[in-house]
Amino acid sequence: MAFWRLKMRFECNQQLLTKALNIVSKAVTSRTTIPILKGILLEVSEDGKLKMSASDLDITIEETVEIEAGVSGSIVVQSKLFGDIIRKLPNATVSIELIDTNVVIKCMNSEFSIIGLSADEFPSIKNIEENPDYITFDKAILKEMIRKTSFAASVDESKGVITGILIELLNDEINMVAIDGYRMAITREAMVNLEEKNVIISAKIMNEISKILSEASEEEENVKLLLNDKKAIFIIGNVKVVLRLLDGEFIKYKDVLPKDNKIKVKVSRSDLMESIERASLLSKEGKNNLIKFAIKDTIVTITSKSEEGNVREEVLINKEGDDLDIGFNAKYVLDVLKSIDDEEIYMLFNTSITPCLVEPISGDSFEYLILPVRITNN
Amino acid sequence: MAFWRLKMRFECNQQLLTKALNIVSKAVTSRTTIPILKGILLEVSEDGKLKMSASDLDITIEETVEIEAGVSGSIVVQSKLFGDIIRKLPNATVSIELIDTNVVIKCMNSEFSIIGLSADEFPSIKNIEENPDYITFDKAILKEMIRKTSFAASVDESKGVITGILIELLNDEINMVAIDGYRMAITREAMVNLEEKNVIISAKIMNEISKILSEASEEEENVKLLLNDKKAIFIIGNVKVVLRLLDGEFIKYKDVLPKDNKIKVKVSRSDLMESIERASLLSKEGKNNLIKFAIKDTIVTITSKSEEGNVREEVLINKEGDDLDIGFNAKYVLDVLKSIDDEEIYMLFNTSITPCLVEPISGDSFEYLILPVRITNN
Repeated sequence: MAFWRLKMRFECNQQLLTKALNIVSKAVTSRTTIPILKGILLEVSEDGKLKMSASDLDITIEETVEIEAGVSGSIVVQSKLFGDIIRKLPNATVSIELIDTNVVIKCMNSEFSIIGLSADEFPSIKNIEENPDYITFDKAILKEMIRKTSFAASVDESKGVITGILIELLNDEINMVAIDGYRMAITREAMVNLEEKNVIISAKIMNEISKILSEASEEEENVKLLLNDKKAIFIIGNVKVVLRLLDGEFIKYKDVLPKDNKIKVKVSRSDLMESIERASLLSKEGKNNLIKFAIKDTIVTITSKSEEGNVREEVLINKEGDDLDIGFNAKYVLDVLKSIDDEEIYMLFNTSITPCLVEPISGDSFEYLILPVRITNN
Repeated sequence: MAFWRLKMRFECNQQLLTKALNIVSKAVTSRTTIPILKGILLEVSEDGKLKMSASDLDITIEETVEIEAGVSGSIVVQSKLFGDIIRKLPNATVSIELIDTNVVIKCMNSEFSIIGLSADEFPSIKNIEENPDYITFDKAILKEMIRKTSFAASVDESKGVITGILIELLNDEINMVAIDGYRMAITREAMVNLEEKNVIISAKIMNEISKILSEASEEEENVKLLLNDKKAIFIIGNVKVVLRLLDGEFIKYKDVLPKDNKIKVKVSRSDLMESIERASLLSKEGKNNLIKFAIKDTIVTITSKSEEGNVREEVLINKEGDDLDIGFNAKYVLDVLKSIDDEEIYMLFNTSITPCLVEPISGDSFEYLILPVRITNN
């Protein structure tokens, strides 16, 4: 350990530290047996800035914090204990100093001394400095695109690329796609991109990014995304998130979309959602959560039953095409309806054994595909 | 099953039903294997009122609800399913009708049919009609007295009376007392009582009563308490809670209170609480959560340590008497400090092995006793 590391010292406001710790600690995994990965790296640079970082090897989060006075150096502290201490200190100036291998934390009438771990053991993060090109997102739009797709990715970690969200950069738009074999979610936004490129990022990590977008500095409206073949970096104000891209070929999702839709149903999203929520109270748990749609003239009748009883719900619709009986897993339909904000939607059907497509009344900002459940008429 | 039971029918607003179900279902236990105890009894009386009741045999909760139109009769419905259905219906008139042994629930475009259980199986509640005397509490005061004592009762169900709160009705005041062998809580309120009487009620049930007090009709300011030797009934507006008293002799708590207090410390409750909260971050978990107080002149220094580090906190005090070193389980001190609202408190000590007494600066509305933990000086 180099001698200069032993001198680290800085002062910073307690609220600023707490805010940064809340963000950075999202990269700390509780599941690891490697002590250093439960830590947060504190680095005070020669030019008087504090960088805090944490990593679970899949995702690394760094935040740069303004400090009041500092002596350069670095140390790793246990994330949970250090976070609890800082959060419980009063809103005042906190002084943090490295004395031997102990981190001494002082604030008003409190003084803590906790054990530090050598910064040398901490996994280093290689940035993508070679490629200075980046994509700029509006924060709110990125959050929305994540919300509208991530739920449809597979949660089975053995499933490879389909645990991820495909980000498709086209000349004039960006698409995000997730699919788990039972349903598919597609969102589209107009956006000018310098080069066409596809990357796949873990849906779990995209949900973390979404949380960071909510918490990170409010002044910052934009998010930068830097990409190379292996990694992506999101830059949100003072926060930098480095993550590994998922390797492999994504499903050719356009081939899955039905070309022909003989039945077109226009329905109030909230009416349909509330009816399915009620009907699902009696769709037997543990089984496939089956609800049946009987689409006939101007009404869709939704039914469900279990040993405890049965339910019938009626929702008004506008229909083009034939009548149809079709079954669904209530959860898959509800996930889709919850992720949409539009008051009215189109549901497109062909037969009782082909997927249902959910689309907006106008435009093509989203598209959802839901596989039906085969029903027997009893 | 009598024929008239089969006719039960009523209409009621969905919000009214939901509010009553939220209260009544607190008596439904999930731990029972007796199906009828997972149910809620619906009874429509001849004079057109709906009574809903649930019971886990220790506690029975009844609520009377105004209905719009009714045919008398009774049935038991599964509490969770019925509650989920009613909660998810729109805010409109719900019609409930017994058809054979099925309960048919209709509201707007929804229709449920669920299985009912015979009301004959439901445990009957015997009221205390013989003794028309009752005690009247102010709702807010009763809630406060429960909050200030219940945490100090034993949670070990094998411990008999000390899992309860002693309610001591004296001529001109009411005392509530709880003790678990490590700490004791006493609250006092001025109140004129017709007869002197002591009863013991399970602290767990008193906490349920407290929740019902928060939820039950806001117009009602007062709570009535009816007592006999075996049972107590709390009447809160339209809600009636019947419970069994705990049998046995409560600890002679006055004998436990120290007569002599050589050291008297005046301290800010919030300063002390925040310091102990921080110090307890390093009082080793799983062990006895030890923090040490060094009371000296105008400062109490609170220290704690674990393998992860150590902490020193200083809090300003006003002291009469000698200096003292004493150890505590941080949780026991925090429980007491959290239950007090006063800005300043007195802490009274004798020696490092005798209990500490916590009292208000003026008056005697509460008194807390905390046993110390023996400390070795290392």
